[in-house]
Amino acid sequence: MRRIEYPAAIKALVAELKRMPGVGPRSAERIALWMIQSRDARAGEIARAIGDATQTIKPCTRCGFFTTDLLCEICSDPAREAGLICVVEQPTEILPLERTGAFRGRYHALGGRIAPLDHVGPEDLRIDALIERIKTEQPTEIILAVGADVEGEATASYLAGILRELPVTVTRLAQGLPAGGGLESADELTLSRAMSGRTPMRA
Amino acid sequence: MRRIEYPAAIKALVAELKRMPGVGPRSAERIALWMIQSRDARAGEIARAIGDATQTIKPCTRCGFFTTDLLCEICSDPAREAGLICVVEQPTEILPLERTGAFRGRYHALGGRIAPLDHVGPEDLRIDALIERIKTEQPTEIILAVGADVEGEATASYLAGILRELPVTVTRLAQGLPAGGGLESADELTLSRAMSGRTPMRA
Repeated sequence: MRRIEYPAAIKALVAELKRMPGVGPRSAERIALWMIQSRDARAGEIARAIGDATQTIKPCTRCGFFTTDLLCEICSDPAREAGLICVVEQPTEILPLERTGAFRGRYHALGGRIAPLDHVGPEDLRIDALIERIKTEQPTEIILAVGADVEGEATASYLAGILRELPVTVTRLAQGLPAGGGLESADELTLSRAMSGRTPMRA
Repeated sequence: MRRIEYPAAIKALVAELKRMPGVGPRSAERIALWMIQSRDARAGEIARAIGDATQTIKPCTRCGFFTTDLLCEICSDPAREAGLICVVEQPTEILPLERTGAFRGRYHALGGRIAPLDHVGPEDLRIDALIERIKTEQPTEIILAVGADVEGEATASYLAGILRELPVTVTRLAQGLPAGGGLESADELTLSRAMSGRTPMRA
């Protein structure tokens, strides 16, 4: 007896959906069957929304955030503090920082981080564009908002070295205990960084 | 300061992706940003696969399984046992049953189950088509493979009543302990059904 499988168009759809981040084989199959069975035009609307977004959204020519224009909403807002540039690895990290409300300056997405094992070197990142911006916009402070892991450290030290020549203060995000994290759940490196970065209590 | 959000095309895409089963707001956002950032044409391929599948796949005119032809692969296979029809609620339940290898007959998807609270009555299910098939194909046995929950029970008893008039044996799936399930994890109703459905040991 022949082994029954779904028709090729369904299998192709499952294979495509499985590529999406966080979607495994089982949920890809579930989504595909839901799309085929949905009586209204839902699946078509999803396909259309994918086309719209991927065709109209491009990186801001200045900071790399998502926009449909040359400049994004942040770069074109005159109310933002021009003296501060927050350097992130990816444009997807901009909105989480925005949502904290703790920063009112502008951003610069490098498009990655130095990772020799992944063959990503400084020349693959938007570092020249950052130096150009520092010369043009003359910010007072560059905040390196890179990860606290090995590649983040490497990227931060490389940038700090390069930017030393320029008349700008370079800072980086604080490292320490995560909010809500007790000492017993912190690893040794986090504890050591939290200790050496300790701050005075304001009574 | 204006609250920064993603451009409208991204928000529309996130809203569409969020409709997919098992995809919450956070994973919808993650998938949308992945689609926009993917350098190759991946997102376009997904959109195309959605279009292909939803446009070419339709229900088998006989059993309701997915096909691109009038009859599905199962209904058009002369090697299947014509004397057995397994009645399922949804066409998505056919492949899981196929994968067990425990059934070599044909299927009939009702397209739902009797659920007064969801306003689904017998007239909304493919019951007339089932009766028609019994008259034409003259199977010896109809296996009711409906769920062991309240609506499944209601659907099974309704069908058993209707089919009593016809010259066909009506059976239903066994109920009892799930594979790997110990007695301590079985609820009272499962235990009671497992007890009353006990089968002789074959030594």
